[in-house]
Amino acid sequence: MTPHEEILQQPEVLRRLFATQHPTAAAVARQWRDAAPTHVVIAARGTSDNAARYAQYLWGQRARLTVGLAAPALFAEGTPSPRLDGAVVVGISQSGASPDLVAVLAEARRQGRPTLAITNEPASPLAEVADQVLALGAGPERAVAATKTYTAQLGAVALIAAALAPADDGDDLGRVPDAVASALADEAVVAEVAARWADFDRCAVLGRATGLATAHEWALKLQELAYVLAQPASPADFAHGPRAVVEPDFPVLAVATDGRWLAGMLDTLAGLRQQGARTLVLADRPEHVRHVADDVLAVPGGVAEWLSPIVAIVAAQLWCLHVTVARGGDPESPRGLTKVTRTR
Amino acid sequence: MTPHEEILQQPEVLRRLFATQHPTAAAVARQWRDAAPTHVVIAARGTSDNAARYAQYLWGQRARLTVGLAAPALFAEGTPSPRLDGAVVVGISQSGASPDLVAVLAEARRQGRPTLAITNEPASPLAEVADQVLALGAGPERAVAATKTYTAQLGAVALIAAALAPADDGDDLGRVPDAVASALADEAVVAEVAARWADFDRCAVLGRATGLATAHEWALKLQELAYVLAQPASPADFAHGPRAVVEPDFPVLAVATDGRWLAGMLDTLAGLRQQGARTLVLADRPEHVRHVADDVLAVPGGVAEWLSPIVAIVAAQLWCLHVTVARGGDPESPRGLTKVTRTR
Repeated sequence: MTPHEEILQQPEVLRRLFATQHPTAAAVARQWRDAAPTHVVIAARGTSDNAARYAQYLWGQRARLTVGLAAPALFAEGTPSPRLDGAVVVGISQSGASPDLVAVLAEARRQGRPTLAITNEPASPLAEVADQVLALGAGPERAVAATKTYTAQLGAVALIAAALAPADDGDDLGRVPDAVASALADEAVVAEVAARWADFDRCAVLGRATGLATAHEWALKLQELAYVLAQPASPADFAHGPRAVVEPDFPVLAVATDGRWLAGMLDTLAGLRQQGARTLVLADRPEHVRHVADDVLAVPGGVAEWLSPIVAIVAAQLWCLHVTVARGGDPESPRGLTKVTRTR
Repeated sequence: MTPHEEILQQPEVLRRLFATQHPTAAAVARQWRDAAPTHVVIAARGTSDNAARYAQYLWGQRARLTVGLAAPALFAEGTPSPRLDGAVVVGISQSGASPDLVAVLAEARRQGRPTLAITNEPASPLAEVADQVLALGAGPERAVAATKTYTAQLGAVALIAAALAPADDGDDLGRVPDAVASALADEAVVAEVAARWADFDRCAVLGRATGLATAHEWALKLQELAYVLAQPASPADFAHGPRAVVEPDFPVLAVATDGRWLAGMLDTLAGLRQQGARTLVLADRPEHVRHVADDVLAVPGGVAEWLSPIVAIVAAQLWCLHVTVARGGDPESPRGLTKVTRTR
């Protein structure tokens, strides 16, 4: 299975996830309502960590939960781990096999806290140690660069958000798979934009709130596939220092989908262009961003703001794949990477 | 006041901080013991966010507190903010003037939670909205790239850790200012190492646990001063994707001070060198790292592991300054930056 094939499976994976995992999300929401947690701790790494960032904003906004990302080093053997009083603890991992994430959930269980694993491998060590398991059901992911399991993780986070804080969403979730399919149908246009970005080896990637998760994941794919050093940041953190690296033609990628953060992002981009930055702007309303964009990466609109990261990243994945090809790289086998990492 | 002068003030700033702020740290510890928090939420940006990372590990390790970094966007006007039940909330900011951080503490106060400001400006809006204020007393910081206020923030975090969980530390804290002075005395050697690193424009910076805070701050200084795009990461997260960018001569900087994470870091560096990376290794026991280092940035030893980040970053600051000069840059006025950022 090539990364390209796995990218194309995403509408189907999301359709299946939304059709089958609703009851699990409802059970999670029931357990959490009973536990009345003071906060949520998420353990994740790499791509899954970016799904955790989405959860931090989405569960924070919608369910008013304070969500923190765990520092797995604190749960390593041989030291007393942090107390998890009041917390529910979530592990997000494609493989469910990273020992340092399993250690966080095992400690949570020892401390009697509710645990949830969001994983593509329901028989994995992570799933075994968790009270509840939300299985992504994305099918085997063979490419080293995770794509379909990332959008499935976002879908799982969204399902849980909807179950935690039911709202008048209409068919918001149901529209996502079609929008993803429509983003994939624009591949020829994406490839054209990518061809103009074949010769850069460093860049910044900006996003705000849930768009920050997209910025992080876009940067990660660009590094894994195209070997471009990509620095993700919120505009606020970027202004606090990294911005100094922007010289004429310095590439800045930005997530500028519609919503409350759009105006601020446009201001930021206007300023960076005055500094000489070359900008690629991901947008679902291209007409709003053209004045600050050297290139626009358009994604389908019509998706609710809280779900737009699921559609946005798909266009970014496709763009990274085509940048890789345009640079003469091989998206099939990124150098130096293996699918499961073990650290000590 | 130039950045160089501010860097040189650090031993004195730390001596004064440790001599005067002990009672404040004790009062904070008392309030927190009474409040019996389930977790700590820290709001910070830029350099201060890196001090928050240090707090996440240090308070987690030593006081078994779960520490999360707030997402300030969630506390912006016009949306219901996350519930902070059970939390104590800390704002870290040199100026105390960033409105989005003030908003987080103001919301915490509205929710009746204990609040602490760690700031260099005890009359700032952030200090005004907090129950308690730990004043850094670092004197005016005029350089855009924060240096002395960063080490003072680390010192404040360490003081609070010691007050929260008293231990048989002997004079661990007291030894830090002299070690910092001794790191500064090695400037000629640091400048020599920096001269060999004048021609790179991107790199990774690796660190684990409290060393991750150092890696983030080292990367930030390198970007602010020398305009080198620097990607900070833990070795585990780096292995999850960014590692693919490592091609022959790709620069990797690493924090490899003595302690429980050293062996794993040496393994990581050995692997990266096999991939062709060019490594600069910051170490307090240089003899342990030479076999994986193209260059060593030596820092004084003899400081307890939990305090070593205060000494380590000083050598890194000095190195960044000299890299900037070696590249023909001007450390006095980084382009595109201002001292206080406002975002919307």
